[in-house]
Amino acid sequence: MENGAKIWSFKGNEELQSASEKTVRGFLNLLMENLNKDDHRPTVPLGHGDPSAFPSFRATDIAEDAIVDALRSAKYNCYAPTVGILPGRRSIADYLSRDLPYTLSPDDVYLTIGCTQAIEVMLTVLARPGANILLPRPGFPYYEARAACTHLEVRHFDLLPENGWEVDLQAVEALADHNTVAMVIINPGNPCGNVYSHQHLNKIAETARKFGILVISDEVYNHITFGSNPFVPMGTFGSIAPVITLGSISKRWSVPGWRCGWLVTNDPNGTLRKSGIVECIKGCLDVSSDPPTFIQGAIPQILENTKEDFFSKIINIIREAADLCYDRIKEIPCITCPYKPEGSMYAMVKLNLCLLEGIGDDLEFCLKLAKEESVIVLPGMAVGMKNWLRITIAIELSSLEDGLGRIKAFCQRHAKKE
Amino acid sequence: MENGAKIWSFKGNEELQSASEKTVRGFLNLLMENLNKDDHRPTVPLGHGDPSAFPSFRATDIAEDAIVDALRSAKYNCYAPTVGILPGRRSIADYLSRDLPYTLSPDDVYLTIGCTQAIEVMLTVLARPGANILLPRPGFPYYEARAACTHLEVRHFDLLPENGWEVDLQAVEALADHNTVAMVIINPGNPCGNVYSHQHLNKIAETARKFGILVISDEVYNHITFGSNPFVPMGTFGSIAPVITLGSISKRWSVPGWRCGWLVTNDPNGTLRKSGIVECIKGCLDVSSDPPTFIQGAIPQILENTKEDFFSKIINIIREAADLCYDRIKEIPCITCPYKPEGSMYAMVKLNLCLLEGIGDDLEFCLKLAKEESVIVLPGMAVGMKNWLRITIAIELSSLEDGLGRIKAFCQRHAKKE
Repeated sequence: MENGAKIWSFKGNEELQSASEKTVRGFLNLLMENLNKDDHRPTVPLGHGDPSAFPSFRATDIAEDAIVDALRSAKYNCYAPTVGILPGRRSIADYLSRDLPYTLSPDDVYLTIGCTQAIEVMLTVLARPGANILLPRPGFPYYEARAACTHLEVRHFDLLPENGWEVDLQAVEALADHNTVAMVIINPGNPCGNVYSHQHLNKIAETARKFGILVISDEVYNHITFGSNPFVPMGTFGSIAPVITLGSISKRWSVPGWRCGWLVTNDPNGTLRKSGIVECIKGCLDVSSDPPTFIQGAIPQILENTKEDFFSKIINIIREAADLCYDRIKEIPCITCPYKPEGSMYAMVKLNLCLLEGIGDDLEFCLKLAKEESVIVLPGMAVGMKNWLRITIAIELSSLEDGLGRIKAFCQRHAKKE
Repeated sequence: MENGAKIWSFKGNEELQSASEKTVRGFLNLLMENLNKDDHRPTVPLGHGDPSAFPSFRATDIAEDAIVDALRSAKYNCYAPTVGILPGRRSIADYLSRDLPYTLSPDDVYLTIGCTQAIEVMLTVLARPGANILLPRPGFPYYEARAACTHLEVRHFDLLPENGWEVDLQAVEALADHNTVAMVIINPGNPCGNVYSHQHLNKIAETARKFGILVISDEVYNHITFGSNPFVPMGTFGSIAPVITLGSISKRWSVPGWRCGWLVTNDPNGTLRKSGIVECIKGCLDVSSDPPTFIQGAIPQILENTKEDFFSKIINIIREAADLCYDRIKEIPCITCPYKPEGSMYAMVKLNLCLLEGIGDDLEFCLKLAKEESVIVLPGMAVGMKNWLRITIAIELSSLEDGLGRIKAFCQRHAKKE
C-alpha cells in the first residue's frame, strides 16, 4: 500500500459539482471558450450583469473616497461583528426606510458579501428537512444552485411574458403546500427587465399570507427603473406577509466587485422574530464570512453622499439602450421581445428556431454566435427558459448597437431558405 | 386562518443554531455581556485574535497604499473570477514558494474571504456521506462548527502539552479508518502558541500517507514565530501526502478585517487533481462569495512591498509578551503554563481549580474574571480543553501587564483558604 499507486480515501463532494453547473458564470465561461481568436473585432459582452468596466458606468468618486476615508482612518482593520457594524446597518435602514410606510431599525439589517451571500444565508436558514421553496421561472440560477447545496426542494412558478412578466399567482397557489416556506421574487426583474406594480406586489403579499409563507424579495436592481412603473419595495407589504429584502450597492453604484450587500427583515408584526428566523439568520452569520470591515465602514458615506446625477446618468443610458434594443430586435424575424425592459439591465427575448437553419436550441445559437460574431449572449436555459435569450443592455450604446447588428447579420446568415 | 393568529409555515434551521454556538465569538460575546459597567478601568481584551486596533499593531502604510492604488485604478470594480484574479493568485504562489522545495503555480491558489472561507470551502468539499475528519484538541472551533453544517463527522486527536503540543500520532492512528478523509493541523498553533519542527511535520505527513488521508494545514499565523523552531510550511511534505494550505494576510499584516485569504493545493504528485478534489474546490467557489476584487488586486503590492521591519517589529513585541506572560503566570499558583509560546498570539494555560474557592470550571472563572476585573480571557472549553484558558498575548505590553496583574489579584482573592 505504501508503494506504487497509493489508495487515497478522499474524493470530491459530488452534490457540489451539480450545484455549480447551474450558475450564469458557468454558461458564460462555456461561451467565452467558444470565441474565435482569429476574429479581430472586439468581443461584445451581452451576457454579463456587470457594466462596471465601461466608461459610462464608472463608479462615482464619492464612493471611492468613502472607501479610502474608511481605510485611512485605521478604525476598520479589525474583525466586524458577524451581523455587520452598527453605522453601516443604520445607514442601510435609513436608506431603505425612505421608500417604506414604516421605519426600519438597524437591527433589521444584516451586512452580507454582496447579494449572493444574502441569498446563501436565507436559503440555508430556511432549509429544514422536507421544506420547499417557490422560485420564479425564468429566474436567477444562483437560487437553484444554493437550494441544491442545502437540500431545499425547489418548485417553479412561471412569470408571464404576456402580462409584463408578472407572477402566475394561480401557479403559486397550485404549488404551495404545508412544507412551502417561501417564494422568491426579483424586482426589478432579472432576467426579464420588468418592474412590478404596487397592485401586483400587494397580490403577491396576499398570496403569501394565504399560504403562510414568507416573501424573499431580491431587489439588487432597486431604483434601476426607466419605464412607467416606479420601483416599489416589497417591504411595503411587510404587514401582510413577512418580507426578507435582499440588496447591495453592486448594481446601482456599479461596483459589483466591492461585494457589499444586505439582508433585511421587513417584519413590522414581529413574525420572523417569533418564528426563530431572526435568531437563525444571526446563527448562520456566526459561521459565515463577513464583508471587509472598512467597506462596511464606508457604507454610510456612500449611501448618504452619492449625488442624484450619478444615478440619473446611468438610468438614462439604460433607458436609451432599452429603446435601441427593442427597436433593433423588431428588425430580426427569428427573435421577438414580448416586453420592452423598464428596469434592471436585461431584455428577455424569444427565439423562433423554425426560422433558422441548423440551430437546434438556444445554447447552440449562443455558441455559434460567440464563434462567428464574437458576441456573448446568455442562453435562456441558463435562467430556466429554453429557446429564449437574455440580452444585457447595460453597456456602452455604441457597443450595444454593434452587438445587435452582428446578431442581425448572424440571424440573416442562418435564416431558413424558403 | 386569515384572521387572528396566522399560522406561518417557515421556521429556522435548527442544525444551524447548534453549529453557531460553537464559535469563539459566541463565547466572547457571552463574556462581554458579563462586564461590570461600573468598573471604570479599561477592559483588557485577552480573549480575541485581533490586535489590529492597538497602535503597536497598526497595519503598514504599504498595505493601505496598495488598496488605495487598486481602488483608484478602477480596474477592480468588476466581478472577479470565482477562483480569484490571476495576479493575486500568482503573487501568493510566489510568496509561499519561497519556503517550499518546489514551485507553486497560480493554479494551485484560490483566493478566499479570509481563512474562514477557506475552512468552509475545504470542509464542504470533503463532506461526502459517511466521511469523517480528524481535528486537533485543543483547536479552533470554527472547524467543528463548519463540520456540523456539512454533516462531516468529527473525531478529535489530542495535542500533547508535555511534548510542546505535538500531535498525538498514536491517537491519529487509532482514530483513522477508511472513511477518514483528512486531518487538520494549525501551525503556528492556535490556541497553544506552539511551532512544529520539521521532523514532527514529516511524521504527520507519513501518518497521513499511511491512512490515505490529506493534511489540511492552517497556517494563518505563518511566520509569526519567535522561539527555537522556525516556521516550516506543511507543503514541504506535499510529495508524501497531499496538503491543503490555508492562510491569509489577516494576522501577519494585522488586517483581519480585510478578509483576504487563500486555499492552496500543495500537490506535487497531482493526487488532488486526480481524485476530483481540485474540480470540487472550483465547483464550491462557483457557488460561494468572493473577496472584493480591488482587495485581490492589491495583494501583489502587499506581498511584494511590505518591509521586513514591519514584521520584525510585531514579532519582537509578541516575543516580549510571551516572556512577560510566562513569567507572570509562574507567580500565580492556580495557573500553570506547560509551554512558553513560540508562535502565533496565544498562551494556553491550565487552571488548578482545587486551589480556588467557589469556581466550578473555566467558564465560571472567565465570567467572574470579566465581572470583577474587566479582563476577557477565553475559557478552554471554547477550544475543546475544559479547565484551561487561552490568553491572547498580542496586545500592547502595558495592557498585557495590567491584565495579568488583575488575573493575579483575582486568583489571590479567590484562593482557597488553608
